[in-house]
Order: sequence, then structure tokens, then C-alpha cells
Amino acid sequence: MDANKVPDIVVSRLPIYLRALNRLAEEGQKVISSQALGDQLSISSAQIRKDLSHFGEFGKQGTGYVIEYLQAQLRRVLNVETVWPVVLTGCGALGRALANYPDFHSEGFEIVALFDNAPHKIGETVANMCIQDVVHLPEVVREREIKVAILAVPASAAQKTADILVEAGIRAILNYAPISISVPPEITVQHIDPAVYLQWMSYYLESPD
Amino acid sequence: MDANKVPDIVVSRLPIYLRALNRLAEEGQKVISSQALGDQLSISSAQIRKDLSHFGEFGKQGTGYVIEYLQAQLRRVLNVETVWPVVLTGCGALGRALANYPDFHSEGFEIVALFDNAPHKIGETVANMCIQDVVHLPEVVREREIKVAILAVPASAAQKTADILVEAGIRAILNYAPISISVPPEITVQHIDPAVYLQWMSYYLESPD
Repeated sequence: MDANKVPDIVVSRLPIYLRALNRLAEEGQKVISSQALGDQLSISSAQIRKDLSHFGEFGKQGTGYVIEYLQAQLRRVLNVETVWPVVLTGCGALGRALANYPDFHSEGFEIVALFDNAPHKIGETVANMCIQDVVHLPEVVREREIKVAILAVPASAAQKTADILVEAGIRAILNYAPISISVPPEITVQHIDPAVYLQWMSYYLESPD
Repeated sequence: MDANKVPDIVVSRLPIYLRALNRLAEEGQKVISSQALGDQLSISSAQIRKDLSHFGEFGKQGTGYVIEYLQAQLRRVLNVETVWPVVLTGCGALGRALANYPDFHSEGFEIVALFDNAPHKIGETVANMCIQDVVHLPEVVREREIKVAILAVPASAAQKTADILVEAGIRAILNYAPISISVPPEITVQHIDPAVYLQWMSYYLESPD
């Protein structure tokens, strides 16, 4: 199957399905219908069935999905059957919060190295890791064959740091800097900008006075 | 115009267009074609024209969009012509980083009150605001008619805090807690879960090993 044929919007929903299934499994549930899953996520059951049909036949009419099986299939599709090592650049308040984020490992990711360029931060320990000088980033990324990075630097440093990451061999960047970055087309970027999400929500609010 | 008729996926792209236009305006640009805007955002020009056509005729064939005019129209559509006051609950590392986020005000939002339930945090000053006991949240939200909240509490406290927010009159919640929350259907929630974005990207990576 050509992965490129699946619309990106469908791919974007798979982690949300997986997260819901993980929670159901933790609660001890074994099977769920597309209807019940859709009700939880405010997504239509038809949409869920259509999304999953891109990747195979995972449920049976009338019995629903076996949760453990669907979890395993989604982990396979999303390439998180193993754990990806991740570098985090930018150890300000946000970077530190992310370094201590509890759930990355169970989701298929592990932050393995922290970088900053501020001399007073280098050498400091955060989440049991020593903050390293960003000049050492390329060798760490190459030696450990790291493909995923989290960018939590200020806007002013974002593009320069992204260039270093791409040059070092990073293929996927989760960008928390409050600015868009330019990368070659083969690099995947997700930009987490709280203002974008706030504006998406304010669309649905009635205007204040 | 019935706002409910515009697909949510279209609404989700409007803040991204606005962010790009804001940056172009800062750089002194006056006009942009849908093609050039699309190239910047990796979105087709046809998609941009179709998205914007839900809200009016904003550009002319051959001349493109007048940036200042389109910014103003998108601000109107997104309900960010004025600044929404926002409460932030949970003043751990992530909450503090968000309280100090530089760009909320220019995007139409301003964090006006911070809350936590940890006695040793209450009274502390972050971003020129005094952290208040969460028991005072309902009165602050009601008195100042606040509709938007950012939830940056641990997973274990997320649902309980969300219930307090909804009961107090909050209509839109930006959820940074690493867990889904249940709210009544009239409340808008955006969930920012880094693991979801990392998995969305790992789909496009070749498997390790």
C-alpha cells in the first residue's frame, strides 16, 4: 500500500483513535463498536470505519473492534511499535515541561538528549539528563541515528535551530516555537502554536460585546 | 450566514492563514497571490481560495489578496477583533511557560488570571500575575465574564478542573493535560497532546531498524 495515498487528515485522526483505545484498555474494556468510539470522540462512526478501512479490515459487523488487536494495528501503521529516540532543543520553561512529560515512552517516543545554547544552562540536569551545548547536537543525532526532534526555542532562534536539526539528519520536527519554520519538503513538521488553537475555538464563541 | 455550515477543518486552517499574513505584513508585504500563500504553507492555492470563499470574496483574479484587508476579514471571522480574557489553571512548568508566552495578545487573547491548588504556589507572582487559589476561579470567571481557559494541570486533576471551568461559565478550553476531558457538547475543546503530533509525524517516517 502506498502510504502517500492516505489523506493527511485521515492520518491525523489515527493517534486520536489510538489514545482513546489505550484509555479503554487501561479501564479493562476488550471490545468497542465504532458507534461507541465515535460517541467518545465526537466523530461519526461512519468516519471511523472509513478512516480505518484505508489500512485493512479491523472490525466485524455487529461485534465491533477487538481493542487489543486494533491498538496493535494502529501502532504498526503509525510506526510506534518501537520507541523513537527524540532530541529536545531549547531548555526554557516549556522545554523543561516537555522533558518531564510523563507519557512519551508509552506512546512510542523517548527524549534522550537535551540541548541549549545558554552557557548557564549547559551542564544542568533536567529529567535525569544533562543539558548539552547545541554545538554537540549533530554528533549526538548522527551517532544515535535520531530522526525526531522537539523544537522549544524562542522564535528568534527557531529557523537557525531547525536548519541545524535538518542538517544533522532529523526528519520530523515538533515545533513549539511561536513562528513557522521553513524546511525541505521531505521533512515533516508539526507546529504547536497555542494562538492558532485559541483562534480556532474563538470562531465558535459569540463575540464579546 | 450560519457558522455551523462551514466545515470545522476549514475553520482550523483560518488561523494558519492569518498567522502567515501577519508575518508577511510585518515584513512589509502588501499583496499576495493564493499561489504564493499556498507555497508558503504547503496548501494548494485552490484549497485556499475554496476555504476563503465560505466567508466572502477577498481577492481578485490576477492581483491576489490585499494583505491588510484579508487580515482584518479573518480577524472578524475568527472573533479576534477584540482581545479575549483567558484564565490559566495549573501553574507548573508548562503553565508558567504559557503564562509568559509572548504572542497571545496580538493574536486576540490575554491571560488575565492564574490558578493552582498547591498551597506553596498560591501567592507567587508569574508573568506579573499573582497565582490564586482555584477556589476563587468561579467568582473571577463570572465577574470578568471570561469565556476562554487554558488547562495545564496534571492528568489526574484535568477532569475535575474542567468541570469547575464549565460550571463557572467557560465556553472554550485549550487542554494541555495529557488526557481527554469530557464536557457538554456546547463547550469547545482543543486538546494539545504532543504524543498525538509525534505519532502523526512518525507515520511518515521509515521504521527504525
